[in-house]
Order: sequence, then structure tokens, then C-alpha cells
Amino acid sequence: MAAQSVAGAGALQHDRILPEEGGNLFVKVAILGAGGLGKVMLEAIQAEGKHSVAGFLDDQVRDQFCALPILGPLASLAGLRRRKISGVALAIGDRFLKVRLDLIATIWSSGLRAINVVHPTAWISPSSRLGQGLYIGPHVVIHAGASIADYCVIWSGSVIEHDVRLDENVFVASSVSLAGYTEVGRDTFVGIGAVLMRSRIGESATIAAGSLVTKDVTAKTVVMGCPARAVGRKRAVAYHS
Amino acid sequence: MAAQSVAGAGALQHDRILPEEGGNLFVKVAILGAGGLGKVMLEAIQAEGKHSVAGFLDDQVRDQFCALPILGPLASLAGLRRRKISGVALAIGDRFLKVRLDLIATIWSSGLRAINVVHPTAWISPSSRLGQGLYIGPHVVIHAGASIADYCVIWSGSVIEHDVRLDENVFVASSVSLAGYTEVGRDTFVGIGAVLMRSRIGESATIAAGSLVTKDVTAKTVVMGCPARAVGRKRAVAYHS
Amino acid sequence: MAAQSVAGAGALQHDRILPEEGGNLFVKVAILGAGGLGKVMLEAIQAEGKHSVAGFLDDQVRDQFCALPILGPLASLAGLRRRKISGVALAIGDRFLKVRLDLIATIWSSGLRAINVVHPTAWISPSSRLGQGLYIGPHVVIHAGASIADYCVIWSGSVIEHDVRLDENVFVASSVSLAGYTEVGRDTFVGIGAVLMRSRIGESATIAAGSLVTKDVTAKTVVMGCPARAVGRKRAVAYHS
Repeated sequence: MAAQSVAGAGALQHDRILPEEGGNLFVKVAILGAGGLGKVMLEAIQAEGKHSVAGFLDDQVRDQFCALPILGPLASLAGLRRRKISGVALAIGDRFLKVRLDLIATIWSSGLRAINVVHPTAWISPSSRLGQGLYIGPHVVIHAGASIADYCVIWSGSVIEHDVRLDENVFVASSVSLAGYTEVGRDTFVGIGAVLMRSRIGESATIAAGSLVTKDVTAKTVVMGCPARAVGRKRAVAYHS
Repeated sequence: MAAQSVAGAGALQHDRILPEEGGNLFVKVAILGAGGLGKVMLEAIQAEGKHSVAGFLDDQVRDQFCALPILGPLASLAGLRRRKISGVALAIGDRFLKVRLDLIATIWSSGLRAINVVHPTAWISPSSRLGQGLYIGPHVVIHAGASIADYCVIWSGSVIEHDVRLDENVFVASSVSLAGYTEVGRDTFVGIGAVLMRSRIGESATIAAGSLVTKDVTAKTVVMGCPARAVGRKRAVAYHS
Repeated sequence: MAAQSVAGAGALQHDRILPEEGGNLFVKVAILGAGGLGKVMLEAIQAEGKHSVAGFLDDQVRDQFCALPILGPLASLAGLRRRKISGVALAIGDRFLKVRLDLIATIWSSGLRAINVVHPTAWISPSSRLGQGLYIGPHVVIHAGASIADYCVIWSGSVIEHDVRLDENVFVASSVSLAGYTEVGRDTFVGIGAVLMRSRIGESATIAAGSLVTKDVTAKTVVMGCPARAVGRKRAVAYHS
């Protein structure tokens, strides 16, 4: 599941066929999760215009969400291929990390393809490397030489500077700024408005909203404040609030 | 004056006729206020290319502002229709809240139309609901399901996440980030660089510049700091500095 | 070296010929510095599509950088015109201020032209005034009446509000927000995520990352924190970390 050497699609490049697409430009997609992230991701997919969305999977029993059908519970993921749906977009928020990790494992074992959802107003450097299963929101900047591994989520207006490395399943909230060369370990959460100077962040860490990170953060540590200081430990799989 | 169910105009949608426009695409407009906000709003209107600007109203006696005529003092607002000007853009800053509220009342009683000024580089979700008389600046994000009531002002680069609700006449300065589901009461001011986690902000509150809001704020309260704490009370109509 | 009255090139204006260009639209350019800023600047020049890049100058002995040749050390700058290279882009970071100032002097004495590099996703007000030798990154906003003097660098997503004045060689990191009417003296560094309320900042000052500046800062002063307070003095030419 390592980040692949796949150039991104930016505001000026959105009619380019990405290497990952393999000529199979339009894929019928189900969005996993009918909440805030699912809603936002649906509109980004529609704005991109590269895929068609068949509906959502969600465990809450409803008929529709955003005028599209709920196709079944999350557990029906493995059966999607029989319904001619070959792509999925993972829209489970960071509060349900265990569910996210289970779904990622199922996506792999089911032969489904996790699509990248890149908002057309994002700027993605042609020399950045994007994995798969990503969500990249409006007005995000991913700069030269940055590397974004599989299943990362980057919300609106965040800046990922040059040569930053995000490992798998990193959650970056809105209006975050990561300085050049910063490295962030897998399953880490970075809260809204946080600012990270050049640093190394361990896996499964939590950077609280509005923090100013001025030095390295060890794995599973919760940091907070300006400058950020450790305020607790996090279980490997936990709720972020 | 509640927010109406009107889809917004975004970077990729700026040639779309909005429901509010009713086919009457080009309106001759006067900008109320010849200061910083007036200047910024003029350029956004010109970048949008949807309306023509006849000039400014301002109480300071001058001939011109930004190479356009000063048409008279603010009190001449009610007579604009006789001059074939049917639209107005409210460019009075938050420091003059009483003047703003008086002008809003006059706009309504005069049968004028308060236009929306949406910078063409802003991203506005098609499922957001925009009122009238708004200014939305460059690179702003208004996300899915957000609701922005009449006469709100949102400066450059601010992010309004999904399902946020801004009541009437909320002032959001530059580079502000409002997390999903946040609710902000009418006549509230949010200062430059503030970050609001999911919260409810009462009416006529003041969120000082650079604040990190982590919990609800009651009406007429001034909060400041990271995390933000109450530091004073505000009269219903007051100056924000 | 004062800022010239030259209208900027914005997202909607990038096919416009700037007054500074004098009809000489495509210039063969060398980038001074083969590091992070050089890489980012190369991609912005390529995205703009206005100039061709012949290679880099850098003192570190290498053959190539970003698939382009290293043309020689920085000291070979004065000989560039003999190689039919008439433009330069200054990509030396703020940590080497003395080197930057020496190169600026050499550019002037060599009759080379320092080009402006403006990312096509930046929004530049037509009433702003831009000097030369600038780098302006993706999603930056430069608003009405702002004045940016020669050799300033403004990283990704920063907001320069209306009527702001930056003197020569000011460095603005990513995701910075400068309120309207702010004035910043020459050779000053503004760190990532800083927020400046309306204020006057003296020359050669340092605004640390994440600072909230609420009042004026005197020359050569280092300020830090929310609100920012003086924490030290800076030599006229120094390293910023």
C-alpha cells in the first residue's frame, strides 16, 4: 500500500489522464459513508467529472442521501463488483478509525479500486507522488516533491509544502499548513488550523486543532497548544474529537 | 431576511445564471461605502463581470474613488432608483455596525436589490444556500450544505466547512476556518486567522483575531486566545477593533 | 529598486502581457539556487508558461536538478548574458540573507532582468503594484492597492490584504495572513501561519511561525507567540530558523 509514483491532477491539468487511470477514465463508484465527508466527496467527484457515483454504503438505514440511493450497509462492500461497481471512495471520518482500517483491508481483498478524489481547484504539483484512495479538497496545495500515501484525507485550503511526506491514512483537517520536509506517520490526525514547522510526526499521533508544532512528535502522542506540548497518549485505534 | 435556497456561483460555475438573477443578468449597481471593503468589492464585481458599477455612495465628500464617481452621501440611497440604479452592494465595514443595520433597513424599504458579490476564484458548493447582499472573497471555500444568510461578509481565503450556518450580517475576516456544523449568530464578528472547532456562537459576539474557539460562545461575548476565553461583553451595536 | 507601478497577473489574467514584459514575452531564464525554493519556482514558471528555464546556478557540485542542468556556481551569474540568458529568478532561501543581498547587487550590475514568478492560481488585484524579482505561490491573494516591492517571496496560500505594503526582500512563508494597511519593512521574515493585524513592522524583523501580531514591531526585533512579544534582537544579516 505504499505511495506510488503517480503524478497528480491539478487545476490546470484536470483533463489529463492519470497513469493510475489506465485509460479506464470513467468508473462507476460507490461512496463508503453517508456523512459530512461523503457529502463533500460526492460534490468533488461531480466537480471533477471523471467518475459516476452509483450511491452510498452506510450502516444507518435510510433510502437516500444527497439524492442518491443507499446501496446497503458497509458490510455489503465485498459484493459491489457483482453490481458492476468497480471503484470506491472511502468517506468514513477519522472518528471511526477502526472502521476505516477494516474497510481498507476489505477493499484490497475484494479487488475493488479505491479512486482518488481531487477537487478541481486544488493545486497538485506534477512532481508530487499520490497514492490511491485519497481525498484532496478545494484550494489545497500539494507542492513539489511531496509524497501522499494511500487513504490520506486533506480538507479544504490546507497547504502541503515541498518534500512533505504523509504516510498512509493521515487525516489533515481544514486550513492546516505543513512546512517543507515535514514527515507524518500513518494513521495520524492533524486538527483544523494546525501549523507544523519542519518536523517528524510519529504514527497514530494526534495534533490538536490550532496547534503550532515546533519539534518532533513521537508515535501515539497527543499534542496541543502554541507551541504544542504532549498532553496525553492515544490508543492505536481511538476516537479523535 | 432568512437565507434563501439559492445555489452559489463557484469557480467552475460562474457563467451559470443564478436563480436569484431571474434572467436580469446585468444590473446597474451602486456600492455603499468608499473604503477598503468598497475597493475590494468593486474589483470582485469587475472580475465577476455580471454587473456594471455606476459609482459609490459615501458621506466623505470626494469626487471620485477608484476612478468612479461618488454619487452622493449614504442618505441618498433611497433615491437611487430614480437614477436607474436598481442594485446595491453593502461595503460598510464591521466598525460601523449601526450604519450597516440602518442601511439594510433602507435597502429593504426602497425596493432596491442587494446583489451578491462572489469572487470568481471562490469555491461555492452547489448544495450551499446563499442569501442576498453577500460579499465572498477570493479563494474562499463554502462547502456542502452550508447556509449563509443575508449581508454576510467573508474575506479572502476563509473556509466555511460543510453544514456551517451563518446568520445575517456575520463578518468573517481573512484566513478564518470554521469547522463543519458550526453555527454563528447574527451580527457576529470573526477576526483574522481565527479557527472555530464545531461550536455554536451567539449573536453579536466578537471572536478576536487569531482565536481558537473550542466550545460554545454566548451572545454579546468577546472571546480571545488559544483556546479562546471570554474577556468582555459587547453592546448590541459597537465598534470592533 | 522601489516597487514599480506594474499591475499583476492573476488567475483570470494570465494571458495578459504585463507592462514590465515590454513585448519580450518569452525570456530564457536561469534559476539562482537549486533547493526547495528553486524546485517550487521552476514548477511555477512551467505552469505560467511565459519563460523557458535553461537551468540552475548553485554552488553545490551536481550535474542536474529537477532534470535541468546546473549551469555553474552562483558566482557565474555575471556571465549569463554571454550564454543568451537574460532573465534570472532568485531562489535563495531566507536562511542565506547575505547571499541573497549579494546576488541582488550582482543582478543589477550585470544588466540581467529579475523576472516575476506568479503562480497561475494566485489572485493578484489589478490595482496592486508589483516590483520585480518576485515569487508568488499557489492560491496566494494580493488584494486591491497592495504594494509588493522587489525580491519579495510569498509562499503558498498566504493572504496579503488591501493596501498592505511590503518593502524589498520581505519573506512571507505559507498560510500567512496580513490584514489591510499592514506595512512590513525590508528584509523581514514572516514565518508559516503567522497572522498580522493592522500594524507596522520594521526592517530586518523576524515574525516567528504561528505568531499573532497585534501591534507594531520595531526593526531587527524577533517576535513570537499569541499575542506576539519581543524575544530577541537580530543582526542585520542573520539566519532565520
